[in-house]
Amino acid sequence: MDQTAGKAPAFLFDAWYVAGWADDLTPGSKVGRTFLNQPIVLFRTETGALGALEDRCCHRAMQLSHGHVDGQILRCTYHGMEYGTDGICTRIPAQEKIPPTARVRSYPLVEQDAMLWIWMGDAQRADPATIPAYPVHHDPRFAWRGAHFPVNGNWQLLIDNLMDLSHLPYIHPKTIGGNPELHFKTKTETTKLPNRVRVERRMPASVPPPTYVTARGFTGLVDRWQEIEFEPVLIRIHTGACDVNTGAYEGRREHGFSMLGFHGITPETERTTHYFWSMATNVLDNDTPDIVFEQTAATFREDQEVLELQQVRMEAEPERPLLDIASDTGGRAARQLIRRLMAAERQDVAT
Amino acid sequence: MDQTAGKAPAFLFDAWYVAGWADDLTPGSKVGRTFLNQPIVLFRTETGALGALEDRCCHRAMQLSHGHVDGQILRCTYHGMEYGTDGICTRIPAQEKIPPTARVRSYPLVEQDAMLWIWMGDAQRADPATIPAYPVHHDPRFAWRGAHFPVNGNWQLLIDNLMDLSHLPYIHPKTIGGNPELHFKTKTETTKLPNRVRVERRMPASVPPPTYVTARGFTGLVDRWQEIEFEPVLIRIHTGACDVNTGAYEGRREHGFSMLGFHGITPETERTTHYFWSMATNVLDNDTPDIVFEQTAATFREDQEVLELQQVRMEAEPERPLLDIASDTGGRAARQLIRRLMAAERQDVAT
Amino acid sequence: MDQTAGKAPAFLFDAWYVAGWADDLTPGSKVGRTFLNQPIVLFRTETGALGALEDRCCHRAMQLSHGHVDGQILRCTYHGMEYGTDGICTRIPAQEKIPPTARVRSYPLVEQDAMLWIWMGDAQRADPATIPAYPVHHDPRFAWRGAHFPVNGNWQLLIDNLMDLSHLPYIHPKTIGGNPELHFKTKTETTKLPNRVRVERRMPASVPPPTYVTARGFTGLVDRWQEIEFEPVLIRIHTGACDVNTGAYEGRREHGFSMLGFHGITPETERTTHYFWSMATNVLDNDTPDIVFEQTAATFREDQEVLELQQVRMEAEPERPLLDIASDTGGRAARQLIRRLMAAERQDVAT
Repeated sequence: MDQTAGKAPAFLFDAWYVAGWADDLTPGSKVGRTFLNQPIVLFRTETGALGALEDRCCHRAMQLSHGHVDGQILRCTYHGMEYGTDGICTRIPAQEKIPPTARVRSYPLVEQDAMLWIWMGDAQRADPATIPAYPVHHDPRFAWRGAHFPVNGNWQLLIDNLMDLSHLPYIHPKTIGGNPELHFKTKTETTKLPNRVRVERRMPASVPPPTYVTARGFTGLVDRWQEIEFEPVLIRIHTGACDVNTGAYEGRREHGFSMLGFHGITPETERTTHYFWSMATNVLDNDTPDIVFEQTAATFREDQEVLELQQVRMEAEPERPLLDIASDTGGRAARQLIRRLMAAERQDVAT
Repeated sequence: MDQTAGKAPAFLFDAWYVAGWADDLTPGSKVGRTFLNQPIVLFRTETGALGALEDRCCHRAMQLSHGHVDGQILRCTYHGMEYGTDGICTRIPAQEKIPPTARVRSYPLVEQDAMLWIWMGDAQRADPATIPAYPVHHDPRFAWRGAHFPVNGNWQLLIDNLMDLSHLPYIHPKTIGGNPELHFKTKTETTKLPNRVRVERRMPASVPPPTYVTARGFTGLVDRWQEIEFEPVLIRIHTGACDVNTGAYEGRREHGFSMLGFHGITPETERTTHYFWSMATNVLDNDTPDIVFEQTAATFREDQEVLELQQVRMEAEPERPLLDIASDTGGRAARQLIRRLMAAERQDVAT
Repeated sequence: MDQTAGKAPAFLFDAWYVAGWADDLTPGSKVGRTFLNQPIVLFRTETGALGALEDRCCHRAMQLSHGHVDGQILRCTYHGMEYGTDGICTRIPAQEKIPPTARVRSYPLVEQDAMLWIWMGDAQRADPATIPAYPVHHDPRFAWRGAHFPVNGNWQLLIDNLMDLSHLPYIHPKTIGGNPELHFKTKTETTKLPNRVRVERRMPASVPPPTYVTARGFTGLVDRWQEIEFEPVLIRIHTGACDVNTGAYEGRREHGFSMLGFHGITPETERTTHYFWSMATNVLDNDTPDIVFEQTAATFREDQEVLELQQVRMEAEPERPLLDIASDTGGRAARQLIRRLMAAERQDVAT
């Protein structure tokens, strides 16, 4: 496999990645996207079957994502070569015989929880049963909106960003930030689980940040929580608050304000990332879900900017050491887990 | 010669290339263009002599194409060095003596058939008598229009494109395309001649494509033809149709509809190409020549897009093999001829 | 020091460079700029102290120039790390202990003559007493305006440009140019001084160029002068004229027209340059200083264009020789001086 040639690969290949929102592909449509440096065309046949093929016709390297879905096939726009969802060429105009080399690589693509999931590694290892579940997208207690943000930064920078919310008061003071001291005075617990990392922080009897007040109308102090869980390669974050001493830390949270964030982190190249995220809330009245989504989008745009600025410096001196600080515990654990999985993958490939 | 250093050259040097339209250079004007990776300034003196010089002043590397033509010379805009059409410096302000090194490389540049022709290789081998003739530009039976399109793709991709018109029904269904089946059911003849490749295809008793109907007002079936001839490094294409069984294939075509395309293919760099083309038609009434030209321009813009999309994929993996199909016969023969000429050129240079 | 690794450094490090105008930094503000390939954040504390730090937080490489000045410190916008003007981190949120590695490189930064001066080399050698003086910026006999132009060319091209004003009649005929013959017929004296190069040219009884006429209302011939002095890495140019035979060459110039140009030339990268320049004049009435400044700015924009065009060709063939001509004497002397200083610097660093 080519990803093992030369220097250490920049990606974890054997994992389910979010490739898009289910709504991105209506029947008969296609879209071109690059994942893990590999250009891919995603398409849905007119009867609803999903296909993910290398975005390069085997004839003259034309981008198949500029072709057309017709019935069960994707037709190259240049000379009319036709491919099924398995990447096998089913028609070459002007000739009867189709040689066995007339095919392009296909990738497993599955729809689940309103998202499209792609497997970029060895297809033999792709088990749809291992796609991370996200029932929030089906739960009537929550309303959610999804988005697709391009990030001009390496995927691991986005993981760092989400695993350490101590940046909130600095970058996002106007929305979900709140007082810096509060974040640093409260204890953060990091737990390493098999193939997961959890970070939890409680801020009891604290002043709610602006977004929370707008959404739930808190008038006094709140018991606030931040619960982050990394699983390669996505992050689920549950943040929220209840009126002080009303059961937030005993699991009674329905009367409070919950924000459930899903963060699909799919490398596009070594320096750019697809960020597929959704934000769900339990406050369904009026425009709250829209307002929460819009405020979150504004917040994430602030993060996008930061990641781009980091990326410029890191690219200039990739080997230069960085200083870890106390709040990096969660991000560091996630990076360790990723490193371990990538090493195991290389080992497997080598043997 | 520097083009032989290192890896195989990407261009055929010893050939006449279209450098522009004669009208591009009025007396006393100049224009900067890059051909075969070499930046060139083309100019015409005030009395009409043509010059093609390296676009780099020998003094401080200023681009001469930003200078001014004055009488018989081109003056550098920075410190006033003056050059004749032979590239020899004739004046250095503030000093009497002009050293023999005060010169820039000059290239043979000839006007013929309303076009400017440049020779980028060894000037000793440049024989103006070998410039490919194109009398159509002087023939009163035809009206023509010319254009200069930039193509963001390697020059050989443009040759492939033009040598295999089986892409017409896929990329150009709205203009000159027509039914795909028709193209593939009809036999294509490829003939290798010394220094030329011809591709011919006949589509007797077929439905005329939209452009043809607009131009000649066909009401029934037509006998259609496509005649393509490659000669390094340009392509002439005669396409057209007559009412069915009225002599199209016996040489009586005046009553039908003819489109005579000239395609000058001049590499700019390894990844970009100057495309100087003209379209002539034998239907001279009303706006037909303009309409045919505009439709052709729209069609060629569609090709430009395709070539750019191919180029991206080919640049990413230049060594990766491609699959040849039946309709590639003409393009493959052209590539073989080019390869042979380039090899012979390298041989000559080496000895 | 890293600048000695590999190929010869492209810059002179041990020198005072103009980093900006004093007004660029109001108390409590900051700005990010790259000098000699090193990204720097310049800031002024709320009490007025100046700081120049590496623009890369030691924690996660975030650009400090996107942070905020607060009192005496610059705070990183990502996780709140705080730095003093000496580059030492004074606060890491969420942890008590600050390790000694929590610091970024700081650079000497001094305000003098309305400009900010930075030392990019070994800070041990930085002596503010050696900052080049420019009292014109404080002299009530002159009015001046300053500007900051980006130049898309190597810094030495800008020095060449300013040391040889024989380009004036070619590039700037509409403003400060005048007749070409005049420039070349008059003798130019080049004097090499320790760490300086002077170029002087007199044009007695000559026709004044347009800018001069506009500013001083000359009606007849003038005695004109051009006095250029290079000192690494800036150039001072005094140009002007008096009515003919009224003492211009005996030092009586107050009744004439003087343009005093300051040209701070600070490399940004090997191919781009910060050009901090000011233009002062002794004609203070009405709008003359503004008009002179605007005409000069228009003139320098013409030079910017030329330098960009040169840079393109020089980058393409960096090793290719150039032809020196008579008017290059001053520029060549400046390049020799720079080469000598750079060699000495490398020697010092090596031992």
